[in-house]
Amino acid sequence: MAEEKLPTRAEDFAEWYNQLVIKADLADYAPVRGCMVVKPYGWALWENITSWLDKEFKETGHVNAAFPTLIPLSFFEKEKEHVEGFSPQLAVVTHGGGEKLEEPLAVRPTSETIIGHMYSKWIKSWRDLPLLIVQWGSVLRWELRTKLFLRTAEFYWHEGHTAHASGEEALEEMYRILDIYENFCVNEAAIPVIKGTKSETEKFPGAQITTSIEAMMWDKRALQSGTSHYFGQNFAKAFEIQYLDHNNSLQFCETTSWAISSRIIGAMIMVHGDDQGLVLPPRLAPIQAVIVPIYKNDAEKSKVMEVANRIFKELKAAKIRIKMDERDNVSSGFKFNDWEMRGVPVRVEIGPKDVDKESVALARRDKPGRDPLTRASGKIFVPQLDLASTVSGLLIEIQDALLKRATEFRDANIHEPKDYEELKKVVVDSWALSFWCESAECEAKVKEDTKATTRNIPLNQPEQEGICIVCGKPSKRKVYFARAY
Amino acid sequence: MAEEKLPTRAEDFAEWYNQLVIKADLADYAPVRGCMVVKPYGWALWENITSWLDKEFKETGHVNAAFPTLIPLSFFEKEKEHVEGFSPQLAVVTHGGGEKLEEPLAVRPTSETIIGHMYSKWIKSWRDLPLLIVQWGSVLRWELRTKLFLRTAEFYWHEGHTAHASGEEALEEMYRILDIYENFCVNEAAIPVIKGTKSETEKFPGAQITTSIEAMMWDKRALQSGTSHYFGQNFAKAFEIQYLDHNNSLQFCETTSWAISSRIIGAMIMVHGDDQGLVLPPRLAPIQAVIVPIYKNDAEKSKVMEVANRIFKELKAAKIRIKMDERDNVSSGFKFNDWEMRGVPVRVEIGPKDVDKESVALARRDKPGRDPLTRASGKIFVPQLDLASTVSGLLIEIQDALLKRATEFRDANIHEPKDYEELKKVVVDSWALSFWCESAECEAKVKEDTKATTRNIPLNQPEQEGICIVCGKPSKRKVYFARAY
Repeated sequence: MAEEKLPTRAEDFAEWYNQLVIKADLADYAPVRGCMVVKPYGWALWENITSWLDKEFKETGHVNAAFPTLIPLSFFEKEKEHVEGFSPQLAVVTHGGGEKLEEPLAVRPTSETIIGHMYSKWIKSWRDLPLLIVQWGSVLRWELRTKLFLRTAEFYWHEGHTAHASGEEALEEMYRILDIYENFCVNEAAIPVIKGTKSETEKFPGAQITTSIEAMMWDKRALQSGTSHYFGQNFAKAFEIQYLDHNNSLQFCETTSWAISSRIIGAMIMVHGDDQGLVLPPRLAPIQAVIVPIYKNDAEKSKVMEVANRIFKELKAAKIRIKMDERDNVSSGFKFNDWEMRGVPVRVEIGPKDVDKESVALARRDKPGRDPLTRASGKIFVPQLDLASTVSGLLIEIQDALLKRATEFRDANIHEPKDYEELKKVVVDSWALSFWCESAECEAKVKEDTKATTRNIPLNQPEQEGICIVCGKPSKRKVYFARAY
Repeated sequence: MAEEKLPTRAEDFAEWYNQLVIKADLADYAPVRGCMVVKPYGWALWENITSWLDKEFKETGHVNAAFPTLIPLSFFEKEKEHVEGFSPQLAVVTHGGGEKLEEPLAVRPTSETIIGHMYSKWIKSWRDLPLLIVQWGSVLRWELRTKLFLRTAEFYWHEGHTAHASGEEALEEMYRILDIYENFCVNEAAIPVIKGTKSETEKFPGAQITTSIEAMMWDKRALQSGTSHYFGQNFAKAFEIQYLDHNNSLQFCETTSWAISSRIIGAMIMVHGDDQGLVLPPRLAPIQAVIVPIYKNDAEKSKVMEVANRIFKELKAAKIRIKMDERDNVSSGFKFNDWEMRGVPVRVEIGPKDVDKESVALARRDKPGRDPLTRASGKIFVPQLDLASTVSGLLIEIQDALLKRATEFRDANIHEPKDYEELKKVVVDSWALSFWCESAECEAKVKEDTKATTRNIPLNQPEQEGICIVCGKPSKRKVYFARAY
């Protein structure tokens, strides 16, 4: 129960986040270092995320499967960059059934290796391609500095792994998935994202190209919110994933992998949340509307509950995810704060006067409380008649308003600095979009001087000529620099 | 592709099973000892199982959540029987992030301990009860003798963990879940099951009561297909799960846990499968009907495909899970065998003559091929008109027929032996239902003499007086003895 107030975001954004995750009942710290427990409310949110993505993947020809949690350590050594990237992060099983294992096993940090091994068994001919498999589950990367949802040793995700006959097809797949991720973020999570290519330094270990979607949080730091990788033949060669082409000649496959993780919940918190707590986009909210019946005595209670119950049924029948708050041990004010903390998009209040007037009061979560200037209540009084369609309409309005607000905020905080001195100032509290020569040296210098990293090189840039904001060499593409989570 | 024939079940049931799992494309052996890969077709079947159960759990007030995969070893030591039961089966992580861990972590074999730990933090008052949480995922119990789906080190399941204010409520929950499991097996998987109580010897480590559902396989061995446990206050005391009751006095909770695992897929294979391969119950089959268009040349192809495509759309619109087999590199005969191997309930064949006659041929998977006596084809010729409702009706008929066949088979293979000598004969190739004094000695003697174990003491037995079939002491309840997987 949310009895104490959060610090404001302006006071201490990190602490606001940490307390919010707990008070909104999304997750808890686990008794295992670096791990989290996702509580029922947080998991219901994750299920809404995963079911949308799962449906979309299936509609684009993907199928689900399950590969072992444990992977022989030797598998990681087959791809040079991959082992360098992941070795320091592995949790290693050395004993099983009371005995020391001949070969230690890693708890999977990602599954390219074991899936690559299986693909080499399963793929024989061009007829077996493309192979488009998704695995849902969790992975483990050793982390000691935990931040719930954003950085935990174990996290939840899907990992897509696809094998194709040609590089063109594999690249198409990589971009198709990036589009699905963008569509998800924009239209479901109400988070505007920038699609682009990662720098050589920032790409996934073993990938030829890593693309990402990047989102801006309330503190203007960037959060990489999804990635889609093109491996070329790197993993196919390391794991001998080969097929006979139409001419009966043996070829290596081209592969991709891609993921969105439970981190996206952290993004939703940090993009939409306010000083009262969580603000969930209606399309993903586990509870879209909550009914708070208000009464002082038994006579009022029976009068109010009759209407409240009828409305509950009407909203439920209209497929609105609705909850009735019948708690009798807390005040209405407590309930209002509690549901605001949990980010429920619409609150339906019904008191005895509302019953008389055949109306209800609706409070929008995205416009909470009283107007700070006029002190006017943000509540809307609407007729009980046709309430389901009123609420449905309001949910759409809120969804749109969240996206609009986040987009305007993001756009207002991207700047194109005129020189390196200005870039250094800009990235303290916003993003910089600048020409860059794509050298690791200039990237490292920015990071050293400002803590900002290259986020991504946005796709579909116009033909243009510029000079690197760091070294002044000619450049044709701009990149986003920002401090990131 | 299923080119080679299976051994018949009568020839070698174990080998029939092993080959079938691979040839029906359900699963594959993983490169990690004791583990399996569930392939897309097998996973689609598992998703149909899990989505039915998930819906049922949610409708009965349960919520999902996620707890860490890794559990501190010390947690297991808090409940004496639990540690004895699971210690020999643990996979243990000793290193993380390149360093030796202070305390080793077990890959979860089951989650009572870590969930109990969290419940002790979350539960404060009677208002927090009951707490009804389900976790979906995989667990690991070290196994070296692998049999895909039936016995693997890592397997997939849900685990329900509930905490209640009273023993009555916890017992009710245990039985409510057992009823859901029975309902699932009977009405979805078409597998008749016997609900009952496990003996002291066979119960779950730490449970006060373990109930199970037991099913009879084709070889008449028993398979425990789901379990529901009542812990009393054992885990509540070990993990200090306490609540303040209405009188503000501190009480221990009463808890339960329960599970059905991917083993149930093994049960479906061994109950319904035949010498041609898998036979899937229509309600769970990933593909309920497959269309095989038959033609010899391009003219026939275009004539046939026009109708086949129309039928595909009609069946899809009627929510039948339908597949079109358009492969042009294998014969129709090969396709028939292939879909029989994969257990698709209905095959729709369309050739040029069928187009002329405005009919199609339907083949029921549960009645494959020709009648062994009359040599009459098992196919049914039906009009194309209203085919969706014909096929929907046939799917219901097949579902019912599978359950009826399995129930008759099971009932014909349960005997009530008149004495111990007869029991010893009966359990070689069927189940015995006998009075038993419920002593571990008599149970051990049966196991020693016959390899048969007590399966369960069926619920709802009439008031009756008998004598133990082993020792002759008075007994009021019968038990099933059978050899088991």
